[in-house]
Amino acid sequence: MNKKLMAVLLTGLMTSQVQAAEWQALPETAPAPADNPTTAAKVELGKMLYMDPRLSSTGTVSCNSCHNVMEGGDDSRAVSMGVHGQTGGRSAPTVWNSAFHSVQFWDGRANSLEDQAKGPITNPIEMGMKNHDQAMTVVKDIPGYKAYFEKAFGKNSMNIENAAKAIAAFERTLITPNSAYDRFVKGDKKALSKQQQDGMNKFAELGCVGCHSGAAFNGPSNEIGVGFYAKFPTFADNDYVAKYKLTDDKGRGGVTNNAAENNMFRVPTLRNISDTAPYFHNGSVKTLEEAVRVMAKTQLNQDLSQQDVKNIVAFLEALTGDYPEISMPRLPASKGSSVVAD
Amino acid sequence: MNKKLMAVLLTGLMTSQVQAAEWQALPETAPAPADNPTTAAKVELGKMLYMDPRLSSTGTVSCNSCHNVMEGGDDSRAVSMGVHGQTGGRSAPTVWNSAFHSVQFWDGRANSLEDQAKGPITNPIEMGMKNHDQAMTVVKDIPGYKAYFEKAFGKNSMNIENAAKAIAAFERTLITPNSAYDRFVKGDKKALSKQQQDGMNKFAELGCVGCHSGAAFNGPSNEIGVGFYAKFPTFADNDYVAKYKLTDDKGRGGVTNNAAENNMFRVPTLRNISDTAPYFHNGSVKTLEEAVRVMAKTQLNQDLSQQDVKNIVAFLEALTGDYPEISMPRLPASKGSSVVAD
Repeated sequence: MNKKLMAVLLTGLMTSQVQAAEWQALPETAPAPADNPTTAAKVELGKMLYMDPRLSSTGTVSCNSCHNVMEGGDDSRAVSMGVHGQTGGRSAPTVWNSAFHSVQFWDGRANSLEDQAKGPITNPIEMGMKNHDQAMTVVKDIPGYKAYFEKAFGKNSMNIENAAKAIAAFERTLITPNSAYDRFVKGDKKALSKQQQDGMNKFAELGCVGCHSGAAFNGPSNEIGVGFYAKFPTFADNDYVAKYKLTDDKGRGGVTNNAAENNMFRVPTLRNISDTAPYFHNGSVKTLEEAVRVMAKTQLNQDLSQQDVKNIVAFLEALTGDYPEISMPRLPASKGSSVVAD
Repeated sequence: MNKKLMAVLLTGLMTSQVQAAEWQALPETAPAPADNPTTAAKVELGKMLYMDPRLSSTGTVSCNSCHNVMEGGDDSRAVSMGVHGQTGGRSAPTVWNSAFHSVQFWDGRANSLEDQAKGPITNPIEMGMKNHDQAMTVVKDIPGYKAYFEKAFGKNSMNIENAAKAIAAFERTLITPNSAYDRFVKGDKKALSKQQQDGMNKFAELGCVGCHSGAAFNGPSNEIGVGFYAKFPTFADNDYVAKYKLTDDKGRGGVTNNAAENNMFRVPTLRNISDTAPYFHNGSVKTLEEAVRVMAKTQLNQDLSQQDVKNIVAFLEALTGDYPEISMPRLPASKGSSVVAD
């Protein structure tokens, strides 16, 4: 394990008690990078591109197919299904509040939402475009898109970098504030039930907050591009590891080729977690109760009582916030000519 | 050919000149059957069910996947793609203004939108559910749906018949009035360009209105459940038939097993036709220009000049109306438990 990672992990563990006292509400706006300030025109274009299945080779898979904003921002599946019914090895992370992740993908291989947005378009088992030029050729062949790019980025701006910037700008609006938990930490002491408060205290006491802290419950430090990773499983001497195939995926190690980072994953947000079954990077666990049990055992070597599990689940349910209303975009028409080839 | 069909067809041909003088604007509301009056509660529930991919075995295909209301109400594909990347032999008809079709599906095998809505859910290459019970088990396993069914249909109302009624009620709201053509026939003589008016006159003069008449351009008579069919191709002695495989699909004859009805199809609406490439029941023709050429030859035995083709296409583009703004529904969460099996 490299020193930087070790430092981040130790910081996580050592500050768990402090964090417990530092419950944070979710901000209502997300930070944007200096080279891509959020504007209404970018968000409008980004929403169209995000919803447009014509960005896939078959015309059937949009960003929203696997990260459905009408649901919990994922696809309800163990592992996602891309073009021609192909499946990969990982479960789609929620797009809701993804702006608060310091790195993107389970293995952190993208440092920004902009960078992330480009990945699935050319992944052969996801959206299946041969390259970004092919994707942009489709976008250019749809006459209506030009005006939206010009409004957002100026003349001659129809390129993949701007498409990704627009999608990222839209994603930065996907925030779910005002959960019962948020109201509680802002002072409404009736916002959480006794059971939820018991669960919250147990969550802190056990040390879950070592990794799941901060406003999005995804790490104590979330400087964009740095990444906060945890080894999963940390304790591998239990039956869950084989049952749920927890060591099959190298995670971060698969990106860095550093064996010390095998099975390390970017810590996911717990916001709206009860809306995103099934669970974990491989979607192997079907219920939130079981996910809590598995995490306690594999990360903290704890066997929880059934009452503790129920209390923690009740607390986690209080992390579901207000999903903003979204109007459906009109996707510009291809105007009398087919643009889908596959 | 049975007498009823013959009568309908003859009526279509004989009234073409009359119809030419009877250009009709699109109504802003659609008729509903006596046993399913449209209500706001049904439309709200129906929109959710229409958008919910969990009604498919894989959790990836909703009604909206192939009949995308963000686009022209179809999927931009030649033939649709269902669960596990499977494809069938027909192109998805648009859902926009489908309430004005007297029968549903290309072969008219459903007499109502309610009846149609049930079909794809259990079609093994579309949404892939084993049966309607399996689909309704998923809906019942999502806690939030119960309240919406009760609001729309009363207590103990979670069944496939009511799900289909709700979807149909939503679909009856999918109307696109106020096209340039509609404004023209309502008296705004500047709503159509000279070229579009030339195309409109040619469209009538050629006899296209024999089948594509009425407010939705889908037949002179559209009593719900009766059906207006045309033989396609009527004139098969041309190269288009082999090139576009126009006789491979038996159409209505495949439903009735009456050879006289082979290659007969429910006449589709031409509303928003420039937004629904590619064309025909098998999606074999990629551009609207070519579709116009093929129709003139196969249905009327006419070879059109390039100018006539362009004029008619310009007229057809004037049939694109105002798509209403639709807010995205929140799909109720499965609450910490996975509901997708496949």
